[in-house]
Amino acid sequence: MANISDIGVSAAINILSAFAFLVAFAILRLQPVNDRVYFPKWYLKGIRGSPRAGRFVSNFINLDFRTYLRFLNWMPAALKMPEPELIEHAGLDSAAYVRIYLLGLKIFAPITLLSFLVLVPVNWTGDTLETMGNVTFSDIDKLSISNIPEKSEKLWAHLLMAYVFTFWTFYVLYKEYRILTHKRLQFLASENRHPHQFTVLVRNVPPDPDESVSEHVEHFFCVNHPDSYLTHQVVYNANKLANIVEKKKSLKNWLIYYQNQYERNPSNKPITKTGLWGLWGTKVDAIDYYSIEIEKLSKEEFVERERVISDPKSIVPAAFVSFKSRWGAAVCAQTQQSSNPTVWLTEWAPEPRDVYWPNLAIPYVELTLRRLLIAVALFFLTFFFMIPIALVQSLANIESIEKFLHPLEPLIEIKGVKSVIQGFLPGIVLKIFLILLPTILMTMSKIEGYTSLSSLERRSASKYYLFVLVNVFLGSIVTGTAFQQLKRFLHEAPSKIPETIGVGIPMKATFFITYIMVDGWASVAAEILRLVPLIIFHLKNTFLVKTEKDREQAMDPGCLGFAIYEPRIQLYFLLGFVYSVVTPILLPFIIIFFAFAFLVFRHQIINVYNQKYESGAAFWPAVHTRIIIGMIISQLLLLGLLSTKEASSSTPFLIFLPFLTIWFHIFCQGRFKSAFVAFPLQDAMVKDTLEKATEPTLDLKAYLGDAYMHPVFKGGEVENSLVTDEEENNPLVPTKRTSRLSSKMGSNVSSEHGIS
Amino acid sequence: MANISDIGVSAAINILSAFAFLVAFAILRLQPVNDRVYFPKWYLKGIRGSPRAGRFVSNFINLDFRTYLRFLNWMPAALKMPEPELIEHAGLDSAAYVRIYLLGLKIFAPITLLSFLVLVPVNWTGDTLETMGNVTFSDIDKLSISNIPEKSEKLWAHLLMAYVFTFWTFYVLYKEYRILTHKRLQFLASENRHPHQFTVLVRNVPPDPDESVSEHVEHFFCVNHPDSYLTHQVVYNANKLANIVEKKKSLKNWLIYYQNQYERNPSNKPITKTGLWGLWGTKVDAIDYYSIEIEKLSKEEFVERERVISDPKSIVPAAFVSFKSRWGAAVCAQTQQSSNPTVWLTEWAPEPRDVYWPNLAIPYVELTLRRLLIAVALFFLTFFFMIPIALVQSLANIESIEKFLHPLEPLIEIKGVKSVIQGFLPGIVLKIFLILLPTILMTMSKIEGYTSLSSLERRSASKYYLFVLVNVFLGSIVTGTAFQQLKRFLHEAPSKIPETIGVGIPMKATFFITYIMVDGWASVAAEILRLVPLIIFHLKNTFLVKTEKDREQAMDPGCLGFAIYEPRIQLYFLLGFVYSVVTPILLPFIIIFFAFAFLVFRHQIINVYNQKYESGAAFWPAVHTRIIIGMIISQLLLLGLLSTKEASSSTPFLIFLPFLTIWFHIFCQGRFKSAFVAFPLQDAMVKDTLEKATEPTLDLKAYLGDAYMHPVFKGGEVENSLVTDEEENNPLVPTKRTSRLSSKMGSNVSSEHGIS
Repeated sequence: MANISDIGVSAAINILSAFAFLVAFAILRLQPVNDRVYFPKWYLKGIRGSPRAGRFVSNFINLDFRTYLRFLNWMPAALKMPEPELIEHAGLDSAAYVRIYLLGLKIFAPITLLSFLVLVPVNWTGDTLETMGNVTFSDIDKLSISNIPEKSEKLWAHLLMAYVFTFWTFYVLYKEYRILTHKRLQFLASENRHPHQFTVLVRNVPPDPDESVSEHVEHFFCVNHPDSYLTHQVVYNANKLANIVEKKKSLKNWLIYYQNQYERNPSNKPITKTGLWGLWGTKVDAIDYYSIEIEKLSKEEFVERERVISDPKSIVPAAFVSFKSRWGAAVCAQTQQSSNPTVWLTEWAPEPRDVYWPNLAIPYVELTLRRLLIAVALFFLTFFFMIPIALVQSLANIESIEKFLHPLEPLIEIKGVKSVIQGFLPGIVLKIFLILLPTILMTMSKIEGYTSLSSLERRSASKYYLFVLVNVFLGSIVTGTAFQQLKRFLHEAPSKIPETIGVGIPMKATFFITYIMVDGWASVAAEILRLVPLIIFHLKNTFLVKTEKDREQAMDPGCLGFAIYEPRIQLYFLLGFVYSVVTPILLPFIIIFFAFAFLVFRHQIINVYNQKYESGAAFWPAVHTRIIIGMIISQLLLLGLLSTKEASSSTPFLIFLPFLTIWFHIFCQGRFKSAFVAFPLQDAMVKDTLEKATEPTLDLKAYLGDAYMHPVFKGGEVENSLVTDEEENNPLVPTKRTSRLSSKMGSNVSSEHGIS
Repeated sequence: MANISDIGVSAAINILSAFAFLVAFAILRLQPVNDRVYFPKWYLKGIRGSPRAGRFVSNFINLDFRTYLRFLNWMPAALKMPEPELIEHAGLDSAAYVRIYLLGLKIFAPITLLSFLVLVPVNWTGDTLETMGNVTFSDIDKLSISNIPEKSEKLWAHLLMAYVFTFWTFYVLYKEYRILTHKRLQFLASENRHPHQFTVLVRNVPPDPDESVSEHVEHFFCVNHPDSYLTHQVVYNANKLANIVEKKKSLKNWLIYYQNQYERNPSNKPITKTGLWGLWGTKVDAIDYYSIEIEKLSKEEFVERERVISDPKSIVPAAFVSFKSRWGAAVCAQTQQSSNPTVWLTEWAPEPRDVYWPNLAIPYVELTLRRLLIAVALFFLTFFFMIPIALVQSLANIESIEKFLHPLEPLIEIKGVKSVIQGFLPGIVLKIFLILLPTILMTMSKIEGYTSLSSLERRSASKYYLFVLVNVFLGSIVTGTAFQQLKRFLHEAPSKIPETIGVGIPMKATFFITYIMVDGWASVAAEILRLVPLIIFHLKNTFLVKTEKDREQAMDPGCLGFAIYEPRIQLYFLLGFVYSVVTPILLPFIIIFFAFAFLVFRHQIINVYNQKYESGAAFWPAVHTRIIIGMIISQLLLLGLLSTKEASSSTPFLIFLPFLTIWFHIFCQGRFKSAFVAFPLQDAMVKDTLEKATEPTLDLKAYLGDAYMHPVFKGGEVENSLVTDEEENNPLVPTKRTSRLSSKMGSNVSSEHGIS
């Protein structure tokens, strides 16, 4: 077992490497040439432009060395922007996301303090490990509950602290849920006019022999919502068309690449091969080839476009129905329309940019079948994922590689190379799987048939959480694959399971401390460096960019990967709860993670990430639920651990904790959840009345227009619609400072010199 | 273990005793004097009157001996009434209730046939038990799965049958759910105008410093439902007043009793004692005493009535809000009103007679606390109920009784009496508890705060089901108290639990066969005899009845005890599923139960029971869910049983069954449940439009009037309101035959002679 000094060394290494990342970031971000990688959000907002004037060199490299001295300036800058402005700048989703880190700080900072004041001295004076001569132990174990002798009265302290920590967490969670609910309601209330406020997504429109889908929808809503129905927009099955457009775009990129090459070196006409990835097939002139291909695709696109619009079969049985008022839309979204609950299904329309178009036309029976299949698949993925991995690992051994890549055989046969490959290969296969995992989970969620990107991300997050819980947390404590664990748990008494895991917990403290540093700290530091977008941007910049507009397109701000990051945060919550009573020494590491991540992600959402959609923090109930799950797991494990300590007088009191937690959860969900699901009529009425008073002449039908047209019919430019522009001109926060300028100056004060 | 001939003897005894009940019933029901006990429903409908003309004796005793010969005539008569007429006559609730028995027949009749054709021969030729020389076995065991040797290929037959039975049950359940949904929608659509169709119950009206509850409600709904709000009715806290009225009624009964006594025997002035139950205290003239007491209470009632109406504090923060159309009410009931989801809670108003008034004013936080407490209490009641019972049993021993009833000591000391008391006492305590159990569960449901009698019954039924499942089913198979079982299960591996129970199942077949006969057959036969109502009616008739109106009040038709009967039916479903594959010989007994109960209850709802409320078969989703639970339990137990048979090639295929069943359940609930919860806007619109066309001049406000006034303000006569009368004049079924007369003649053809 690791000693405190071991941990110290490990911590030092990790802190140094994180520091190296930060220094690299500080240097890279000051270079004007990287400006679009590290501040794309400001470019998108139109506040920052590419450098045009000045000396040539200073357009690429920052030569003002004074700025390098203030290389950590971004940290206070990231904190400077007040939250209302942050919500306006980056959206409520992003602001709520960084609040998860803040929540971690709020929960664990007092818990850490208290456990260091109370539990660490109690554990230290336990003296069990020292009296057991033949057991090797470390200083860390002396600080953990392992140092308390069996049947000791000192375990009452741990019991008491478990209760104190639980109630403190309840308090913080409740307050946070209330704040978030308030913020969401405020956000929805102060939000500008948006098409989705007036619109309801209707799915499973029943077929009618006499009427088209469009007519049927119109008649149905004219009859059943006579006072509020306004208009509707049918949904075209434009998936094939979207594919063609996508393919054309990629071909255009290649054309530009070859044209650029040709311009730079006119003597050498670029040549490509017609086969797969340009690696096989006959050689042809690249520019001609791609021009012809694009021509062909354009024709195909035109034909397909005509077909989609004119063919009634390409209209799917779903529609976006708009109402005269928010009240009418709220009524329609929350009520059941038909006595057959599998047709005329209504729900709030997602934002136009949030719609996941391919899923709008799935019939009800198919949907339930799909969910069944995915549930089974998720179970197998979680518990049996090691089987295909092991299979691939056994196939991907050195002999089969030699067979496949025959020309490379001499190289592989070199002893060093061979052993390296043999050593790394299994790990690489696993790593590739883990990198692909979020994509796999997202695909599974898509198969489940959710209709908006935001709900897809939320579903993927919950799947990923299950995976992390089973394979990272349980898998680390109870060694062996998840499948072996499952088998073991099935053949063990339910009351034994918390014991089995509980006993393993104190021993794994050092492992998890290292894990927090390597996975938590390092990944957050890597996050801010944005190495992959940096490389891609410079590749694109070199080969594809000709005009300023090209450069704009080459810039990829990306967006917050909620489905990937949130489940990982939950792991730290879980570790914090589990070890808060058992091994408090782990807590500071978690606090550092939360603080550091809070800083970094606040910086990122201010300067980098762009929103794909705005769901108004609709994910918060799920976040809350998962934190509660972490609490219950920690309570059960503590119960198991204490029951092995045979403190029979104190342990039974722990039984009430999980029940209390479940009740707290039910209470909170009943109290707050509906604010994240339904839109209350009172609020709708208030907004409607206000709007009627201020804009009596508004032509809503014209305003809605073709907001819910498939993006492929709008040339794919959904992001910069009328709506977003309007928000720009009409800021959200009433008490606004000169926000943009100041925050720009705040966060970029050091890079300012490099630009102009 | 019991032999087939043992079972035969037992069956014969039970059939004979059931037959004796039926004969007793046949004789008693033909006596005119019992007419009001066995045909109260017809009296309530006003179709049948008390005999007035004719000879004196024939008013009490039926002397026409020909009628006695046709004493089983009620059976075909009970089946004669077609279902649409039955729904009109007894309500959809009752009609749906007897369909549960029919559902049992539909599921188990083909299963029985198939299992006798396939499984019984397979089991009979198993020959395991005969080869094991030293094991005693019976013919019944030879027909069960116990006779199949381990690892036998014959187990494939059982596996196949498990699948066939499951799919057959799916088919029947799905069809039945669809029929019920259809019937409910049809019922709601064809239903006459009722106040509850236009009314929404609003709870948790937030306090307002400037406005009274009534004003606040009016303003809120005028603003948020401007087009459809009509009127509202505040709720008075009249619980104390209701108590006074109740007490007064009881005193009046006593007064009448003594007045009757005095009239019959004018020489002897009746005397009573003022103390408890008239057993202690000073002697006074009974008629004077009760007259004065009633006088006192009347004054008290008047004062309280004034106070309730004038005191604003007696208005609880709840109201019945009525709308101009069903559409408006449907919208309000299904939407969220305020951004705070704990205030302005709206739900469909129950029927006026269905409202449970004391629960309308519980605040949200208290409600969640109450549910938590009741959940904990239910757990303890289910698993630990034996502890207080055993305590009472030990206290209620012979010595303490002697101490308490000192004068009776000599009597008790007689040897025979003593041993009888000692033998019966523990059993009696348990029996009393079991009789009280439904009342206890109903009280628990009331504490949970449900606002309608129908939902209270549904909640009680689910609690009772848990109790029956744990203490009757599991308790009989795994001997020992539920608490011991719980302890055992906690310390056993989850995969072992189905095995432990599964192995016990074939051995308990004979026990359950006897149980079905004693509990099922006999209780159904007792049901039709109505012994308790018969005695009470004759007591009342002798001592209290003076006028015809008094006799009407003495008649107590009672109502269908859904909360008590339904969980018991579920036990038979469960037994049927569990034994269908294991010991098919049990199935015919279940079929006889279902058929017999179907007959009896159809007769009862036609002739006896009166409805307390009409919920439109709102209980069906719960019935469906519990049948599904029974299926899953049976599948898990079969899995456990087969795994001990070591048929490793076939057993794994069973794993899919429970998952399939869960999915089927989710599918069915998604497909049908909402029809039992929400009222679709389309249907509301259709009814509104129709009404507007046929009755354009309807004054809805006057119609609604004080429909939702606390019954105590209406003199307690809720049942015979305007609404019920209207239904009478305007029958439900369009294609009506001369229904009342014919069904009366059909079902009472034999008793007709006795009346006129």
